[in-house]
Amino acid sequence: MSLIAATAARIPPPDTRIRKAARERLRNHARPAGSLGRLEEVSARLAAICGTLDVRLTEKVVVTCAGDHGICAEGVSLFPSDVTAQMVTNFVAGGASINVLARHAGARVVVADLGVADDFDPALPIFHKKIRKGTDNFARGPAMTRHEAQRSVEAGIEIIEALLAQGPVHLLGTGDMGIGNTTPSTAIAAVFTRKPVSEIAGRGTGIDDTGLLRKIAAIEQGLAVNRPDPTDPLDVLAKVGGFEIGGLAGLVIAAAANRIPVLCDGLISTAGALIGCRLAPKAVDYLFASHRSVESGHGAMLDHLGLFPLLDLGLRLGEGTGAALAMGLMDAATRILPEIKTFEEVAIADAQR
Amino acid sequence: MSLIAATAARIPPPDTRIRKAARERLRNHARPAGSLGRLEEVSARLAAICGTLDVRLTEKVVVTCAGDHGICAEGVSLFPSDVTAQMVTNFVAGGASINVLARHAGARVVVADLGVADDFDPALPIFHKKIRKGTDNFARGPAMTRHEAQRSVEAGIEIIEALLAQGPVHLLGTGDMGIGNTTPSTAIAAVFTRKPVSEIAGRGTGIDDTGLLRKIAAIEQGLAVNRPDPTDPLDVLAKVGGFEIGGLAGLVIAAAANRIPVLCDGLISTAGALIGCRLAPKAVDYLFASHRSVESGHGAMLDHLGLFPLLDLGLRLGEGTGAALAMGLMDAATRILPEIKTFEEVAIADAQR
Repeated sequence: MSLIAATAARIPPPDTRIRKAARERLRNHARPAGSLGRLEEVSARLAAICGTLDVRLTEKVVVTCAGDHGICAEGVSLFPSDVTAQMVTNFVAGGASINVLARHAGARVVVADLGVADDFDPALPIFHKKIRKGTDNFARGPAMTRHEAQRSVEAGIEIIEALLAQGPVHLLGTGDMGIGNTTPSTAIAAVFTRKPVSEIAGRGTGIDDTGLLRKIAAIEQGLAVNRPDPTDPLDVLAKVGGFEIGGLAGLVIAAAANRIPVLCDGLISTAGALIGCRLAPKAVDYLFASHRSVESGHGAMLDHLGLFPLLDLGLRLGEGTGAALAMGLMDAATRILPEIKTFEEVAIADAQR
Repeated sequence: MSLIAATAARIPPPDTRIRKAARERLRNHARPAGSLGRLEEVSARLAAICGTLDVRLTEKVVVTCAGDHGICAEGVSLFPSDVTAQMVTNFVAGGASINVLARHAGARVVVADLGVADDFDPALPIFHKKIRKGTDNFARGPAMTRHEAQRSVEAGIEIIEALLAQGPVHLLGTGDMGIGNTTPSTAIAAVFTRKPVSEIAGRGTGIDDTGLLRKIAAIEQGLAVNRPDPTDPLDVLAKVGGFEIGGLAGLVIAAAANRIPVLCDGLISTAGALIGCRLAPKAVDYLFASHRSVESGHGAMLDHLGLFPLLDLGLRLGEGTGAALAMGLMDAATRILPEIKTFEEVAIADAQR
């Protein structure tokens, strides 16, 4: 059995008995039933995932997967590809957006090179998992081979296993860096949600109207040229995906196999998560959406996965920033369940009975 | 000059020079311009309020104002009025929802009795600012006298001044407790936004369809009987308001006068803030909306005030819980501004120029 299939097979179902107990305690809290809204569902899901009513998400990690994209040749991004490598260096130096927000969230940032079009010093403290220096231009043919697609997902799995060999991980945030990567992500969203590209394509880092039309045309051409098979997630990843997107899929599968809740960032992380959930359908039980991106392809994938976003702040940065921002809400969700007293505990007659 | 007018007159404008510098730094961050969405505006506003690019919201306080409501005689709530006093005791004991979420946010909870229909031990560590033991039923006549309305706002001002005499406050969250208080809050929303009551009335703690119709009828009757004058905020407060709502208005005015940003909770806190901003229009510059409540009257008031909510999680609890939940996002907004490196600082050529 392949590493992907073997890892997928290990994903346990969340503990339904604990989920039931969590929902009952939430209902008995000394407050109107349901009054903490969606936080209650997050709370119950986390309890079921972790197998306890007193969840503590102490060890938080954001894994930011980086890769470059041949599709940039079509003029789909405002920035040149070499910014990807520069930002990886910036992540390691600690001055990027994700470093700031992860520090605020009490999370470590772990960076992984899945396919950056540059050579890094092997001593650079990142996961060196380069499949190749950037994908091919998927408007002209497949972005990568099927074997490379498989290897990128496996690399994501290996990263989680390596992290767990170092110590526990209680909450995983996913993030991305890759100039041009809203383009393959939107292609993936179009394949799985079957929505028209023109409806879900967005401006990425901020392209203008002409750039957006170019981007839509490139994606449509890529889908026409490659004909990715929506029933075969590795085929979709190989034909219109990216190396970091494959890595993100692997992170989700491996986290689920190890009962680690995953807080997904925006468009790219969610495209990876969607590939991951197609390869390993049980993984979706471990997945949480940190926010709703400005990119409408993101909302389409969240709906498709049945996830609601914790935040809706018009973010469109990536790197894992949305995941880091939402981590405090995940912690809050774990605290309400055991700490808010029930009507019985505060001896207030439950007037609703 | 009255305490209210004197305090309103003290409200300084936020520092526009600092706001400009903040926006410029945000634009020069090594990330796509605008990519942190609404967090950027929060960041710039906080900088302008606090007069620095390196804001630290170390001392956080949630002030939860409590009061009872004569309108409960109309059967508008699922819970009996004595739950208000019981919950005040629960707040002091530390087992209520607001205690849990404030603890998580690193905030103190301060409780104030503005008009609970019960006697508290004077030794109870709360602000004892009782105007009267509950308002009158505003479906039959004014909820309180104009003098009482003024006193409730002044009490809110006095609470802030008393807190500041003890030490600094960097961020104020507002919260409420008062069985039946979505009813006066919805009446206030209807008066100022001029929206039909039937459009903005909600289910509060969870009343059924019949209860909702009763609530709408009670509010409509109250507005018809009292004819509150929308150009006279104290008249609105006196006729269809509540003591804790007046207190909440005073908190906002006094916080603004002392350059303290205010993170407003849901429907009731926002009704108080709206009264406060009508009494002291400059106060709105210090106001932030923590979340969008399930109660549609809340959204109507936020739109009216020009505020966007940081969270949209289907909350409808009150107590200040939404404010406490959003405090981590306010902290995050203060960190991004100074800590994310600019393109110049990381020596990445700004490809957008």
